[in-house]
Amino acid sequence: MTPTEFRKKVRDNEYQKPTAGMCPGYAQTNLIVLPWEDAYDFLLFAQRNPKPIPILEVTEVGSRELQTLGNDIDVATDFPKYRIYRNGKMVDEYLSVVDFWREDLVSFLIGCSFSFEDLLVDAGIEIRHITEKANVPMFNTNIPLKQAGKFSGNMVVSMRPIKSSQIATAVNVTNRLPGVHGAPIQIGNPAEIGIYDLTDPDYGDAVTINENEIPVFWACGVTPQAAVMASKPKFAITHSPGHMLITNISNKDLSV
Amino acid sequence: MTPTEFRKKVRDNEYQKPTAGMCPGYAQTNLIVLPWEDAYDFLLFAQRNPKPIPILEVTEVGSRELQTLGNDIDVATDFPKYRIYRNGKMVDEYLSVVDFWREDLVSFLIGCSFSFEDLLVDAGIEIRHITEKANVPMFNTNIPLKQAGKFSGNMVVSMRPIKSSQIATAVNVTNRLPGVHGAPIQIGNPAEIGIYDLTDPDYGDAVTINENEIPVFWACGVTPQAAVMASKPKFAITHSPGHMLITNISNKDLSV
Repeated sequence: MTPTEFRKKVRDNEYQKPTAGMCPGYAQTNLIVLPWEDAYDFLLFAQRNPKPIPILEVTEVGSRELQTLGNDIDVATDFPKYRIYRNGKMVDEYLSVVDFWREDLVSFLIGCSFSFEDLLVDAGIEIRHITEKANVPMFNTNIPLKQAGKFSGNMVVSMRPIKSSQIATAVNVTNRLPGVHGAPIQIGNPAEIGIYDLTDPDYGDAVTINENEIPVFWACGVTPQAAVMASKPKFAITHSPGHMLITNISNKDLSV
Repeated sequence: MTPTEFRKKVRDNEYQKPTAGMCPGYAQTNLIVLPWEDAYDFLLFAQRNPKPIPILEVTEVGSRELQTLGNDIDVATDFPKYRIYRNGKMVDEYLSVVDFWREDLVSFLIGCSFSFEDLLVDAGIEIRHITEKANVPMFNTNIPLKQAGKFSGNMVVSMRPIKSSQIATAVNVTNRLPGVHGAPIQIGNPAEIGIYDLTDPDYGDAVTINENEIPVFWACGVTPQAAVMASKPKFAITHSPGHMLITNISNKDLSV
């Protein structure tokens, strides 16, 4: 299925699940939509925290269209699932946010680690949550972000168990993709970053960790959602964790 | 001389020249200072044009202090020379801009290709403008930037003549430094990007190009100045081309 065909299914609410492993080769993105009054603070927050918040595109104020990531994308319908936050509290999840759209909204499309998963697979590395048909496990950490205006909070990470013999490869492959979180931020010591139970993720699903595997942590595009909860802007729309936009650009385009 | 010692000389107006080759190993930066009303547009302009405008740090509104690049830096005194623009026209050059400072100004510190020059020297590559004690030659091009709000314009590039046998090395060395413009944007065909006379740069000085050398072009942090002239914000302060801030961080810190 091409990204355009896949997004058609999403737009028609025929696909409502996590997107890991879908349309291999194409970049996926996270989303946060904020009112114009919060846009500068958030753009600066991203500039100061590029590992968890690598911005791939910012829309014009009020627009639901993209330029760089694909010219047939509707930001308000093409993610399988959205969350709406008011004053830092999640209101509910929605399949479309067309009814909530406003002329003062700015959308930030943020690189996603799902983008590098097929490059890891190409390198012979198993992605456990794809094998187990689960959502990637994601965890809040104790790693503070650099504040910008009203935005602050701690980093969220995604975790993949990787065989000890393949960790160096996983680092090298992802290091070349700074636009989708780049190299891991930590390997093998969850307690050091405030994660005490790998079987109980804060977002997504737990996955099996085998004996010869080490948990590897990458900065995660759910970080802005944690920042929204911590910073309480009046209104925000995000994707639902794991339920990404599949863009028209290839992961290779994001490689340096 | 340490960066702190060097900046002391600059602050006392004892050093007023271009900074190429000074304090080897330490990152240098370009500068643009804009009123708050233009800050979002410029930050977005940089996000959309990361090759010429790789932002290393943004100050708090009104502040002349930095956090990441060094905590003993004064943005208004520590560049050897500044330019002030009003409505897109350069007013004059100044050794300090303390007298022009306002509470609504935001400073953008932008990566500089001088940062990678000592890594090129380490790789055995001669940097001609350092050998000739000249400022690096810089040229306006016909390469359009992506617009953001009021900001648009064409890319400015710096040029270094490199031996044919060393161009691959120059690409590899600079490719690892996306924070200071990264790999060249073009090699060997100046007319294609609108440059018709290499002996007549738009900024800086002409340098000798030997027979076995090819002109190699990197995106340049003077680009925001060309954008200022094209986009005419009411007020802007920039560094004078080639007259950079030397920071406390090492070029290695910028490597990926």
